[in-house]
Amino acid sequence: MANVFPLITLTTDFGTADTFVAQMKGVILAIAPQARIVDITHHISPQDVTMAALALDDAVDAFADGAVHVVVVDPGVGGSRAAIAVRTDRFTLIGPDNGVFTAVLARHAVRRSVSLTNGTYHRQPISATFHGRDIFAPVAAHLAAGCSFDDLGKEHRRLVTLDLPMPKPIADGLELRVLRIDRFGNLLTNLKQADCPAGSVTVQVGMITVKGIYRTFADVSPGDAVAYFGSGGRLEIAIRNGDAAEDWGAKPGDVVYLRVN
Amino acid sequence: MANVFPLITLTTDFGTADTFVAQMKGVILAIAPQARIVDITHHISPQDVTMAALALDDAVDAFADGAVHVVVVDPGVGGSRAAIAVRTDRFTLIGPDNGVFTAVLARHAVRRSVSLTNGTYHRQPISATFHGRDIFAPVAAHLAAGCSFDDLGKEHRRLVTLDLPMPKPIADGLELRVLRIDRFGNLLTNLKQADCPAGSVTVQVGMITVKGIYRTFADVSPGDAVAYFGSGGRLEIAIRNGDAAEDWGAKPGDVVYLRVN
Amino acid sequence: MANVFPLITLTTDFGTADTFVAQMKGVILAIAPQARIVDITHHISPQDVTMAALALDDAVDAFADGAVHVVVVDPGVGGSRAAIAVRTDRFTLIGPDNGVFTAVLARHAVRRSVSLTNGTYHRQPISATFHGRDIFAPVAAHLAAGCSFDDLGKEHRRLVTLDLPMPKPIADGLELRVLRIDRFGNLLTNLKQADCPAGSVTVQVGMITVKGIYRTFADVSPGDAVAYFGSGGRLEIAIRNGDAAEDWGAKPGDVVYLRVN
Repeated sequence: MANVFPLITLTTDFGTADTFVAQMKGVILAIAPQARIVDITHHISPQDVTMAALALDDAVDAFADGAVHVVVVDPGVGGSRAAIAVRTDRFTLIGPDNGVFTAVLARHAVRRSVSLTNGTYHRQPISATFHGRDIFAPVAAHLAAGCSFDDLGKEHRRLVTLDLPMPKPIADGLELRVLRIDRFGNLLTNLKQADCPAGSVTVQVGMITVKGIYRTFADVSPGDAVAYFGSGGRLEIAIRNGDAAEDWGAKPGDVVYLRVN
Repeated sequence: MANVFPLITLTTDFGTADTFVAQMKGVILAIAPQARIVDITHHISPQDVTMAALALDDAVDAFADGAVHVVVVDPGVGGSRAAIAVRTDRFTLIGPDNGVFTAVLARHAVRRSVSLTNGTYHRQPISATFHGRDIFAPVAAHLAAGCSFDDLGKEHRRLVTLDLPMPKPIADGLELRVLRIDRFGNLLTNLKQADCPAGSVTVQVGMITVKGIYRTFADVSPGDAVAYFGSGGRLEIAIRNGDAAEDWGAKPGDVVYLRVN
Repeated sequence: MANVFPLITLTTDFGTADTFVAQMKGVILAIAPQARIVDITHHISPQDVTMAALALDDAVDAFADGAVHVVVVDPGVGGSRAAIAVRTDRFTLIGPDNGVFTAVLARHAVRRSVSLTNGTYHRQPISATFHGRDIFAPVAAHLAAGCSFDDLGKEHRRLVTLDLPMPKPIADGLELRVLRIDRFGNLLTNLKQADCPAGSVTVQVGMITVKGIYRTFADVSPGDAVAYFGSGGRLEIAIRNGDAAEDWGAKPGDVVYLRVN
């Protein structure tokens, strides 16, 4: 059954200067005028599937059950990669089968997944370069409007998965990676709070060493470096009221050492 | 009669850092709280009426019939240019009479057009510099809320038109132009598929020559240059999984030769 | 009583590349699916409370009565600053008690203000770094959904206020400041029209002197410098169809002299 205000989110690498995102929204609202659309982000680096996987993983828990999350970071569009929809207990994912759902599906079990082969739910004719508008958006809208998940296409069992960078054990702790830099210059790492070793730790990134993990940056003085578990549950390294990435020249992919003292 | 969820789109050169766009949305929703608003783009270069005309033309076909498309790229605001609404069989256009609807109206015939002279539907007092908020947004909202098109003002017969760059015949084919560069560095030209000469062709931009027109970039190898008709029906020149504009130093206005072999 | 389409606006320094804003929207729509959300801006410079105060002040008058305006520019998050809601005759403000409402409250009297101490209306567990998602968004949504203002927490009487730069009298007029530069390169000053001295004036910024205050830039020739009261009621200095800030090297904080001749 359809919700009164079904929710569809969009995560793309389209930026907002071109009209790609607007075209997707036009298609969605033509099919499901009552749908609510939320932009997760359109500023994924072009074709960066890993960055998209992490962004979606950051955001999904904030949305109500029943949301339809569309991801269009799709370097293989027009080629042989499948277009899929995946249902979990909480939400539906729609996008290319290129691993972009890897991070979310590591935390939420797949209940059903289908290949989007039923052209009834696509925009015709389907362009070779913009499945976001012609397949993913209309399928999301039809789901929002109440169509049956199983009617979207044939079962699609084996999903492509990405090798996301995981913490690696070292002699005295863990070798981590900087996954991304946020708007404030904070460094987000690949360590989740549940995987953090117990005890007194030191965090090192480049020439910078930070002792201990605090509750938040407000627990240190302005200008001081600090490590804490951020709002997404990841270990972050920051300068209170400053820009750590700029000051330290840090960037995604940089190694971070977490050492147990 | 008003739709249950009337749709209004916005295309401006306001950017999203200032509050101009938000003010327009506030005005719209105060008059038509049920309206759905979609941003086409706010990143038109300041006062670039041609770029706005092309962006609107890219996007309109994705929207359901009945949409109201507002364009505010308006270097003549506060001067003598008219403020207009134009109705076609499919949608309504609202904005300054400066040619910004030229591309769309080349494909969709004008049914009625009026000058927005009826102050009942404006926000009072009208500022001299922000007709987007004080005239175009409230008129769009009143239309969405069900007011009569003919009540907006007097008939306005002769619309300003832009000279959009058109393909020029040359001895062995066509001289084209790069209209714009998209987020992925793809070059969008002024050649629509229907106007493409039959036969085997070569596409040349600067030092780069591409043989043939493919269905899509996925038909060539990563890193190869390729020409194809994109999702908007225009000839595009790209590097698969690369950034053609950056690699080639291409920019809007560059000449492209399409030669029939 | 709740509106049919209650309106919530968001003003933050989160940018739109990260997923912070999307998470706030997810939380809001999970509680109040019928709410309409308008982005005022997310491009406040990180932690620039003054810039946020001015942006909100620019925008509020465009919105219908009853709107809930959420501001999350919050360098003290996780520390001792209070989280507050403030009600005026026209709207409700929600955010940190750090002065971010100073400009709006100089024009709209406080009717009631509370500290957001009632955890019933928060998202649990509350992170130490993202009260936008865990306190401000859910409180706004609960208000939109009809909860009682007084139930949000205890009365909070003394609000933090910012020292916003005010015009200073000088021998022959006023010393003003450039508050910010807009998308078009226009300089917005801290002089409101009501505070402008009568008579013939000269406006000076850096090496540039402009005689008189015009109705709008369309009253001078393209390329000419011009002063006028803009759509927000502030004295602006611009180059018609040009970029004054770039041409003159002007920036926020620059001194402007308004001299009565």
